[in-house]
Amino acid sequence: MLHAKLLTCSCLLFLFFSNSYGQENIQADKTKAPVPVRINADNSVTLTVHAPAAKELAIEGNWMERDGWNAGRAQMMKDSSGRWSYSSNKLTSDLFFYNLILDGKKITDPENVYQVRDVNTVFNYFLTEGAQSDLYKVQDVPHGTVSNPWYPSPTLNSQRRMTVYTPPGYELSKARFPVLYLLHGMGGDEEAWISLGRAIQILDNMIAKDLIEPMIVVMPNGHVSNTAAPGESSRGQYMVSPQTPDVGTGDMERSFKDVMAFVESRYRVKNNKANRAIAGLSMGGSHSMYIAALHPQTFDYVGLFSAATRMNPAVKDPIFDLFDDQLRKQMAPSPKLYWIGMGKTDFLYQIGVGYREKLTAINFPYTYRESEGGHTWSNWRLYLTEFLPQLFRD
Amino acid sequence: MLHAKLLTCSCLLFLFFSNSYGQENIQADKTKAPVPVRINADNSVTLTVHAPAAKELAIEGNWMERDGWNAGRAQMMKDSSGRWSYSSNKLTSDLFFYNLILDGKKITDPENVYQVRDVNTVFNYFLTEGAQSDLYKVQDVPHGTVSNPWYPSPTLNSQRRMTVYTPPGYELSKARFPVLYLLHGMGGDEEAWISLGRAIQILDNMIAKDLIEPMIVVMPNGHVSNTAAPGESSRGQYMVSPQTPDVGTGDMERSFKDVMAFVESRYRVKNNKANRAIAGLSMGGSHSMYIAALHPQTFDYVGLFSAATRMNPAVKDPIFDLFDDQLRKQMAPSPKLYWIGMGKTDFLYQIGVGYREKLTAINFPYTYRESEGGHTWSNWRLYLTEFLPQLFRD
Repeated sequence: MLHAKLLTCSCLLFLFFSNSYGQENIQADKTKAPVPVRINADNSVTLTVHAPAAKELAIEGNWMERDGWNAGRAQMMKDSSGRWSYSSNKLTSDLFFYNLILDGKKITDPENVYQVRDVNTVFNYFLTEGAQSDLYKVQDVPHGTVSNPWYPSPTLNSQRRMTVYTPPGYELSKARFPVLYLLHGMGGDEEAWISLGRAIQILDNMIAKDLIEPMIVVMPNGHVSNTAAPGESSRGQYMVSPQTPDVGTGDMERSFKDVMAFVESRYRVKNNKANRAIAGLSMGGSHSMYIAALHPQTFDYVGLFSAATRMNPAVKDPIFDLFDDQLRKQMAPSPKLYWIGMGKTDFLYQIGVGYREKLTAINFPYTYRESEGGHTWSNWRLYLTEFLPQLFRD
Repeated sequence: MLHAKLLTCSCLLFLFFSNSYGQENIQADKTKAPVPVRINADNSVTLTVHAPAAKELAIEGNWMERDGWNAGRAQMMKDSSGRWSYSSNKLTSDLFFYNLILDGKKITDPENVYQVRDVNTVFNYFLTEGAQSDLYKVQDVPHGTVSNPWYPSPTLNSQRRMTVYTPPGYELSKARFPVLYLLHGMGGDEEAWISLGRAIQILDNMIAKDLIEPMIVVMPNGHVSNTAAPGESSRGQYMVSPQTPDVGTGDMERSFKDVMAFVESRYRVKNNKANRAIAGLSMGGSHSMYIAALHPQTFDYVGLFSAATRMNPAVKDPIFDLFDDQLRKQMAPSPKLYWIGMGKTDFLYQIGVGYREKLTAINFPYTYRESEGGHTWSNWRLYLTEFLPQLFRD
């Protein structure tokens, strides 16, 4: 009889749960669309939002025409039910970001829980169809393991958080693997490459297709004045800004030996030049070029994606002041691959021209890839998919 | 001379970066407040949002009076500069959730990037001061490692994602550690306990204070029809709903042996009853009670937090139909701790009363903790901090 009573209660329980979407009892919005984002047959996107009381709703997406730093905007149209909608033109195969502007205030799409943070802005994202975005989607392939260990940095006298990808089968193997150090830009942290950069999906998918060697990928935090990504350190909740005092000081480059020491003691990595790569975007490209030069016979693969060079010329430091000498030491022998990627409209384009002139002047061998577009994650994901297949192949 | 040119360019570069907050060139909102959330000296909170064109701005927070499933709301007040503000009364020491309502549409706070997803709602969060929230904050203590391995489930014929916490020093040790399996509720996934539940911070902080034994904590995904959290599986971007067809089928309980087999082969865990615990909230409480009974001499510690019981009585399955027999097998000998936590206003309160009556009727020993409040993460975090110190201590 007790059992029967429990059954009755459990039926009610199931109804209760069914009528509430929130795990907690904050009532959820029941007016949401059945899918957050609709990708149409022609690879255009349709977005809709129910907001009957709004005066105006606009959308700002990174596929739109833009004016310098200002993204393009489009007005959304309201139907008689109070649902606003927008459809794009046909899009390329990629991951895209967008925000909405509701009565003048930039917000995330309240009907789409799929979001990423870029510096102090949260974007919604979606993926269109096609060969390139297939590399960015989670596929039914063997998955590597992502972890967030904290490592000691004696140089910086702190514990610091990093993200590490170990390839499928790593844990069951006794083999050693090559290692790529993959560095983020000025606005990023140890999570940037796996959130905005889709590095995990790219690695899983390209390993599954045998397009790249299974490898360990290490993504440290390039701001030495932070120990971890926003919200993951004892700084708590602060206004995120890329203007940290560490930019261009040389401390990232100087302390990088602590990252390598940790990785080489903790993980089964192959500890030689032929099996080490370093790459980074923007500020992380600057870090990569100076770290590779500081340890001139350590990396056989260097990738500079939309790279900055010297970030703060007011700082005098042997890392920067003796860079040209170190570059020459890097040539005896040269890395197997010194890969430079830059977008045609990148605001760092002329910086890149100057850097390549410097390399050419001393006969430093490099590979140059110029893409459409500018200083964007679209390019950095693309560069990663082009850089990875060239690593550790011989 | 080339060098001089680069220096000049780099100066410009630094200015460029300084003027743009976004990593990409979508222009960021420059009107944001200097801190996203202000915790006042009396533990009240002040939130402000710049939205001069908005007609109305309200806030809905889980500290407000509520009516059943409806959260309380408060109007925000606009000053002459177009900035809206709200200040709460003094709050308890805890982590709190909130949303804003901008001209009738529920949104996240566009000036606060600190967010968590609960089912299909994204909340902002903040932490007040005090002893309890100190356990939820990232502190400068040794940190464990969080990882997301995928494991094979032969029972479900799929690869599945889990979250694993290994305590500080695990990797440098050769010792074996006790293991807690920590299960989420109907709206959750393998990330719920580390995002909404602050499990990592609780473990790091309580281990650092020697309040609990260092342990491995395994957080699998309790929805067998999903292989991973939203966005982390090949299902891509879908409307998140807790109404998955797996609820109450017994498949989670049946396939749990695959979770244990993976954990016991991959990690240095102590493989005996005295060193195994299982706990869960709501649906995960139901899972915990049935899994512990299905493997009746496997867990010496069981935690049922706001637990459901039989989730779908229409399903006939030995796991549920023979539960009473299995409970008796669990008594020979009984677990060292069978801990039940329930909030006074939880909608499952009467379910809990019935379940405890069942246990009492067969003289099954248990510990009961009744707290204020209802079916909330505030209670589940609290229960975790109370449950953990009782594990593996003798």
